[in-house]
Amino acid sequence: MQKSPSASSLGPGGLDLAQAFFKPIQNSDPHSTTNRHTKISVIGVGNVGMAIAQTILTQDLADELALVDAKADKLRGEMLDLQHAAAFLPRTKINASVDYSVTAGSDLCIVTAGARQNPGESRLNLLQRNVALFSNIIPPLAKYSPDSILLIVSNPVDVLTYVSWKLSGFPSNRVIGSGTNLDSSRFRFLIADHLDVNAQDVQAFIVGEHGDSSVALWSSISVGGVPVLSFLQNQQIAYEKQTLENIHKAVVDGAYEVINLKGYTSWAIGYSVANLARSLLRDQRKIHPVSVLAKGFYGIDGGDVFLSLPALLGRAGVLGVTNIHLTDEEMHRLRKSAETILEVQSQLGL
Amino acid sequence: MQKSPSASSLGPGGLDLAQAFFKPIQNSDPHSTTNRHTKISVIGVGNVGMAIAQTILTQDLADELALVDAKADKLRGEMLDLQHAAAFLPRTKINASVDYSVTAGSDLCIVTAGARQNPGESRLNLLQRNVALFSNIIPPLAKYSPDSILLIVSNPVDVLTYVSWKLSGFPSNRVIGSGTNLDSSRFRFLIADHLDVNAQDVQAFIVGEHGDSSVALWSSISVGGVPVLSFLQNQQIAYEKQTLENIHKAVVDGAYEVINLKGYTSWAIGYSVANLARSLLRDQRKIHPVSVLAKGFYGIDGGDVFLSLPALLGRAGVLGVTNIHLTDEEMHRLRKSAETILEVQSQLGL
Amino acid sequence: MQKSPSASSLGPGGLDLAQAFFKPIQNSDPHSTTNRHTKISVIGVGNVGMAIAQTILTQDLADELALVDAKADKLRGEMLDLQHAAAFLPRTKINASVDYSVTAGSDLCIVTAGARQNPGESRLNLLQRNVALFSNIIPPLAKYSPDSILLIVSNPVDVLTYVSWKLSGFPSNRVIGSGTNLDSSRFRFLIADHLDVNAQDVQAFIVGEHGDSSVALWSSISVGGVPVLSFLQNQQIAYEKQTLENIHKAVVDGAYEVINLKGYTSWAIGYSVANLARSLLRDQRKIHPVSVLAKGFYGIDGGDVFLSLPALLGRAGVLGVTNIHLTDEEMHRLRKSAETILEVQSQLGL
Amino acid sequence: MQKSPSASSLGPGGLDLAQAFFKPIQNSDPHSTTNRHTKISVIGVGNVGMAIAQTILTQDLADELALVDAKADKLRGEMLDLQHAAAFLPRTKINASVDYSVTAGSDLCIVTAGARQNPGESRLNLLQRNVALFSNIIPPLAKYSPDSILLIVSNPVDVLTYVSWKLSGFPSNRVIGSGTNLDSSRFRFLIADHLDVNAQDVQAFIVGEHGDSSVALWSSISVGGVPVLSFLQNQQIAYEKQTLENIHKAVVDGAYEVINLKGYTSWAIGYSVANLARSLLRDQRKIHPVSVLAKGFYGIDGGDVFLSLPALLGRAGVLGVTNIHLTDEEMHRLRKSAETILEVQSQLGL
Repeated sequence: MQKSPSASSLGPGGLDLAQAFFKPIQNSDPHSTTNRHTKISVIGVGNVGMAIAQTILTQDLADELALVDAKADKLRGEMLDLQHAAAFLPRTKINASVDYSVTAGSDLCIVTAGARQNPGESRLNLLQRNVALFSNIIPPLAKYSPDSILLIVSNPVDVLTYVSWKLSGFPSNRVIGSGTNLDSSRFRFLIADHLDVNAQDVQAFIVGEHGDSSVALWSSISVGGVPVLSFLQNQQIAYEKQTLENIHKAVVDGAYEVINLKGYTSWAIGYSVANLARSLLRDQRKIHPVSVLAKGFYGIDGGDVFLSLPALLGRAGVLGVTNIHLTDEEMHRLRKSAETILEVQSQLGL
Repeated sequence: MQKSPSASSLGPGGLDLAQAFFKPIQNSDPHSTTNRHTKISVIGVGNVGMAIAQTILTQDLADELALVDAKADKLRGEMLDLQHAAAFLPRTKINASVDYSVTAGSDLCIVTAGARQNPGESRLNLLQRNVALFSNIIPPLAKYSPDSILLIVSNPVDVLTYVSWKLSGFPSNRVIGSGTNLDSSRFRFLIADHLDVNAQDVQAFIVGEHGDSSVALWSSISVGGVPVLSFLQNQQIAYEKQTLENIHKAVVDGAYEVINLKGYTSWAIGYSVANLARSLLRDQRKIHPVSVLAKGFYGIDGGDVFLSLPALLGRAGVLGVTNIHLTDEEMHRLRKSAETILEVQSQLGL
Repeated sequence: MQKSPSASSLGPGGLDLAQAFFKPIQNSDPHSTTNRHTKISVIGVGNVGMAIAQTILTQDLADELALVDAKADKLRGEMLDLQHAAAFLPRTKINASVDYSVTAGSDLCIVTAGARQNPGESRLNLLQRNVALFSNIIPPLAKYSPDSILLIVSNPVDVLTYVSWKLSGFPSNRVIGSGTNLDSSRFRFLIADHLDVNAQDVQAFIVGEHGDSSVALWSSISVGGVPVLSFLQNQQIAYEKQTLENIHKAVVDGAYEVINLKGYTSWAIGYSVANLARSLLRDQRKIHPVSVLAKGFYGIDGGDVFLSLPALLGRAGVLGVTNIHLTDEEMHRLRKSAETILEVQSQLGL
Repeated sequence: MQKSPSASSLGPGGLDLAQAFFKPIQNSDPHSTTNRHTKISVIGVGNVGMAIAQTILTQDLADELALVDAKADKLRGEMLDLQHAAAFLPRTKINASVDYSVTAGSDLCIVTAGARQNPGESRLNLLQRNVALFSNIIPPLAKYSPDSILLIVSNPVDVLTYVSWKLSGFPSNRVIGSGTNLDSSRFRFLIADHLDVNAQDVQAFIVGEHGDSSVALWSSISVGGVPVLSFLQNQQIAYEKQTLENIHKAVVDGAYEVINLKGYTSWAIGYSVANLARSLLRDQRKIHPVSVLAKGFYGIDGGDVFLSLPALLGRAGVLGVTNIHLTDEEMHRLRKSAETILEVQSQLGL
């Protein structure tokens, strides 16, 4: 599906023209370095997958972009719609196919396929529909791109990241879930909007399960380097615990609210995942709250569970996990989060 | 709708915190320069409007972005979805409202409102549904932003740009239609894909009406500065006229094809309009095929008609029109294009 | 000096060609919005001034760039060297002149003029050579751009920012010194390099005087939101006070070290000032340690003194100062810093 | 020289802190993909080399940057000056050493080492001083990065590119000279400045030798796709041949003029080479006038000669050369250019 029929309608003369237009120089060996470029594959071209693909394209993060979906028409339509913008963007080779061979040699595979979350539906309910789907997605991805990093976006993201780890056989540093990276951005936006400052100057983490049981790390929030809770204390500004709970609730409800209003979420998750792609592929060594193999951290020892922790990301994937100081309550909530996920996993029989 | 309720749920303590956090310095006068920033408004938050708004946001083209639509829920959902990405982007103030006062002081107003083009529906058929709509859109935009540039994207774009010019009372250099800027990108992509070169190295214009009667300027196509037709002649490579017609047909059919496959077009028009926004607001003085008041050019003298010509764009809008050499046939087709539009306009009674 | 003689050597035919090439459209009024673009002036085209100007150009922060220097030849050479890259950059209008009228209508004026800091020379020693210079620079800048923001880079930056405030008559929010913004970046780099993380994930401030008496705010350092000192405490990792002093010393010595090795500093100050220009002109509302009117903060009340504090910057200049919690020792050092500067200022008789 | 002494002055506790801060996750294998990043080496940290290195850094073209020079102090000063800006830039690993092992695994090696061109000195005079130098530079580069592309900037660039090809043993597609890429930008700027349009909308090539015998391809100049010479003809605007010669002369004199005014050229060559680096490493398939093995093109058959021709550049280096139609006079001048270079080469005994 690489060449559009419209282009090939230029006929057999087409090849002649290209050959006439550019002639190779002598003593050249053009194949010596051609495979050294950056390739990203996006599986699933629904609203989330396309917001990710388009943001990656706009931010010029890849030299080649491959799209895969089961719906051939929709897939081709999305590919053409991106290709038609070629004159306005740095050149990126854009391919699309229902066949996974199009993903061969990817540096990063982003999986967004899955049933869309319905209004009011809990993320966990989506699970059974998606595990079956992943057994058809992950093995071919791992086969065609054995050195790639897998970035899972489909929900419930923590369990599906675990499933992808199991199905791929990859080392754990190369299997990551988008997790609470977006929840944390919503958290930072709410605080920044409140103070009328740039959200990039707000440090704040939501960790644990991406969903209703996520944990807001109030003790580690800072603005421009100023720890907020101790600032309030020093200034003798009283804050009721309920107020803090309300902000966390607004974050958790953020996705549901957008789904209720516009029917789905797309832009914010697109920016969130493109942001992770940059940290990974450009070796940025930045700290992101993403879903990683959490066993052994913060007293989580009940089994192989993926949930979001502040992880250092670079070209090799997960480089390490930060040892943030948690309050007893935060620690307790995080372990509950892990137990919730493990309980779900136990029903899968993987 | 500027402050999200979630944020204001921080309660009366909210304001206190912001005031405690940042204190003004002495002898300051913070109001002296606050109005000097770049503001873009997008009218209509359907697939096209949102692809434009999101691309403008990603490419950091505005300091403030205002969205307007009649559907309050959809509008608020799209605003929140963009705002949630704040931590991943340079700061842009994002507002949304059903009330046009939110657009006050815009530098550029982009109008995408209108009925979506149905599969198989000609662009001209959309007209009557849209002219009525514009009489409710353009006057408030002109009132709240009397110095802004109007960029019309809704179809049929040429007639609606004329309508917007009439309704706004703006000088003609500040009323522009996106016209064939995207058609030309599709044209450049097809040629670039054929030669396997960067589409930015292909110069090629589609002019005239944005639609079935558009005119491909074959005589002015060049690749990396090499005029293609004379290259073929010099190389004695024969090209049948039918082959050229097929490429133009592929361009004209491009929009229809994408609509048939995915239901609508969005990404390419988003990039195309963001590209125009950059040339206009950053005073780039670049040449774009866009819909401008064409009277007096290329023998078009039947009346006030807007259609796409190669126009030099900068901070003042349309700075001039290039005097490309057309073949007799190209000239003839362009005038037919103008007549087609004028005939439609004559039925509007404006 | 705007048009290069080489260009005007195209002769009288030049104007004819431009006029023949682009013809205005009817009913146009191209002067209605032309003055709404972003203009930055850089005073002084030595190594620092040019690193700033070139970084602003590469990062596309201005639509117009004006350079001023007393040395006409050097000035023209630098202007041409930037202009020759036009085909590789977004279009920016670049002018240069020994006459300050070239700066008219600037949004931001960056002053780098001054004697270069010699190896081993204290920053304070530069003062007397520079105050006289500023009385010839600031009044014409204020006259030609009465609404602009003044950003002072010349050393000793704190006193010269005070001098510029006095000479300009501007409100204090529009007179800023680059201060310890660069010192803080050196600080963040040393910590980030030590931990092998991205320096953008390190929050750390140097405040006070830009120079030997600057104050490192150890208590507010955090990495990815984790406060470092309390982390060390929690992990029972002992750190000797001397080690911390050594890091601060490495920051203070950073500039001297680079000057000793290559003869001057340029790149880092260029990036630092371009970073400030973005926060100011694009209304980023970010917190930067820059030199502001400090009277009334942190118990500084001895007089009108400028020194670096964590300031919120936006389109109106300094929007406020953050109320960071300082230890008693940090507070003491900061006041000593203020006294040092005030003592110097008292010798100027302004 | 990778770790600054200042950083290591954090003492033995340093490693402990990093290890305490980030702990690896279980089942991880962080070495599986670490070598897949983009590395650029710059040889020579004079004005040209540093303008290139800094522009590459600002434009975020590499994940790792290595600097090599014989002067250890200057080298370390430049490295520190770039590193100190870490907080203002995407993370790039910056190393520097007098030992070529620091360049190991480069994707692109840019050679700027060489004696600076003195005012009035012809480019050919620089040759003998530089050939000897290259026999110490190219073999270690080729040894440590056998798959890299060599991009030669030192003058006389055409002969030194030939010398580098011979010394490296690389296939010809991976040895490129910056050639007339910058001359062409100067040419495009002069025309764009004359018409007050964006230089990116001007297509114009200078080919042949980078220097006094370069050839301006007047017949292929176009602005926004409009061929300029035939436009003038159609508009019956007379242009004297002398006028065209003067513009070419202004281009040739451009470098000399800047050298006379400021002592050297730096910014424009920095942007020019960063522009080539992007086309090569990001596989942009763009057409650039650069120095390539020209034997067999345009009737050049006297021997292995490198000179600038419009070449298609991508990840594999030179992908092909465009077959532009030249006038008889242009063809004649190009062959003379080739003969001039060959004559010089014949005196080298390589």
